[in-house]
Amino acid sequence: MRVRHKPWADDYLKENDHIVVQDPKNYKGKWRELFGNDKPLHVEIGSGKGQFITGMAAQHPEYNFIGIELAKSIIVTAVEKAAEADLPNVRLLNENAADFRELFEENEVDSIYLNFSDPWPKNKHEKRRLTYKSFLEQYEAVLKDNGEVVFKTDNQKLFEYSLSSFSRYGMVLQEVKLDLHTENDPLNVKTEYEEKFSSRGYRIYRSVATFK
Amino acid sequence: MRVRHKPWADDYLKENDHIVVQDPKNYKGKWRELFGNDKPLHVEIGSGKGQFITGMAAQHPEYNFIGIELAKSIIVTAVEKAAEADLPNVRLLNENAADFRELFEENEVDSIYLNFSDPWPKNKHEKRRLTYKSFLEQYEAVLKDNGEVVFKTDNQKLFEYSLSSFSRYGMVLQEVKLDLHTENDPLNVKTEYEEKFSSRGYRIYRSVATFK
Repeated sequence: MRVRHKPWADDYLKENDHIVVQDPKNYKGKWRELFGNDKPLHVEIGSGKGQFITGMAAQHPEYNFIGIELAKSIIVTAVEKAAEADLPNVRLLNENAADFRELFEENEVDSIYLNFSDPWPKNKHEKRRLTYKSFLEQYEAVLKDNGEVVFKTDNQKLFEYSLSSFSRYGMVLQEVKLDLHTENDPLNVKTEYEEKFSSRGYRIYRSVATFK
Repeated sequence: MRVRHKPWADDYLKENDHIVVQDPKNYKGKWRELFGNDKPLHVEIGSGKGQFITGMAAQHPEYNFIGIELAKSIIVTAVEKAAEADLPNVRLLNENAADFRELFEENEVDSIYLNFSDPWPKNKHEKRRLTYKSFLEQYEAVLKDNGEVVFKTDNQKLFEYSLSSFSRYGMVLQEVKLDLHTENDPLNVKTEYEEKFSSRGYRIYRSVATFK
């Protein structure tokens, strides 16, 4: 996503430390303490401008939500949304999650959301795709038994690749949707990308996969 | 497929017993003897009018092919095609393959093709879909290790269901194609249905799955 550089972003993120968790690696294994309750923990990797994670948090007060986004200039918009919505069950991390095992303890996470991840279309960049096996290893390590990886994309090639990657890893496809928006699922919270691409007539794909 | 009743079909099939194998259950475990060689055996379930199986047989003289079709009034067209093509490596069975283990021995089959199978869209008919687990059990029993189930359909719901069914059964999705004809694969042999539906703008889906 190309966005204008925002020199004030650093200060803004620090000012909003009730939403943007500082030094998040310190909370590994302690996220339920931070939220002050034992609700299931749902994590989105690549939260962008935050429409999905804040929408989900509003729809599901019974869960806690953490959105991870590396780009400072983008996450500030997510922080604005979360601040405005004033939800107790959502936090944002401005982290380059090179390894999610640094952020979460084994069995700490109930669901992981991958929404419109970078497709990295070239074969030589396969290892960067968030559905590559080295990432699946990380998800498996932090997810509870029966924990889900919920994946949405408009990118046909990435979806084809990912279904096969999940399957080769030994994951089970609990659900596959090849044209999500024809389902009119009232519980589907759309990301910014999803709204844009769907309105242009692109199909939205979704899978739900578990580690057995 | 709705076709005119053909009262002469019975006689026609018997006259062409060099193509239509009579009493095929007698050949269980002996198909390579019938073909007179040790080439890999590829089986299509639901061959319809035979365009796929005869096209494949012409393209792949290194394999033997068996097409199974229950409907007499339809298989006669496949027999005509095979007779005209005069291929030594294709046979047709006019069988209701209630259980493929009656037709094939363990490890006798190298590939199984399911092309545009009846989607049986109602939930109560799930057990009739050729990708339901009771059929997968049969395929697993007769396929060699690393033997493939190659599935093509234009039916989105059946494809969604089938990917999940393969995965839940423990099969591995070696390949998933969500719009096959954009690939321009020169080796893709089209069925009659495939040509018709693709020309109307429908997507053709294909998966290749193995039993680990």
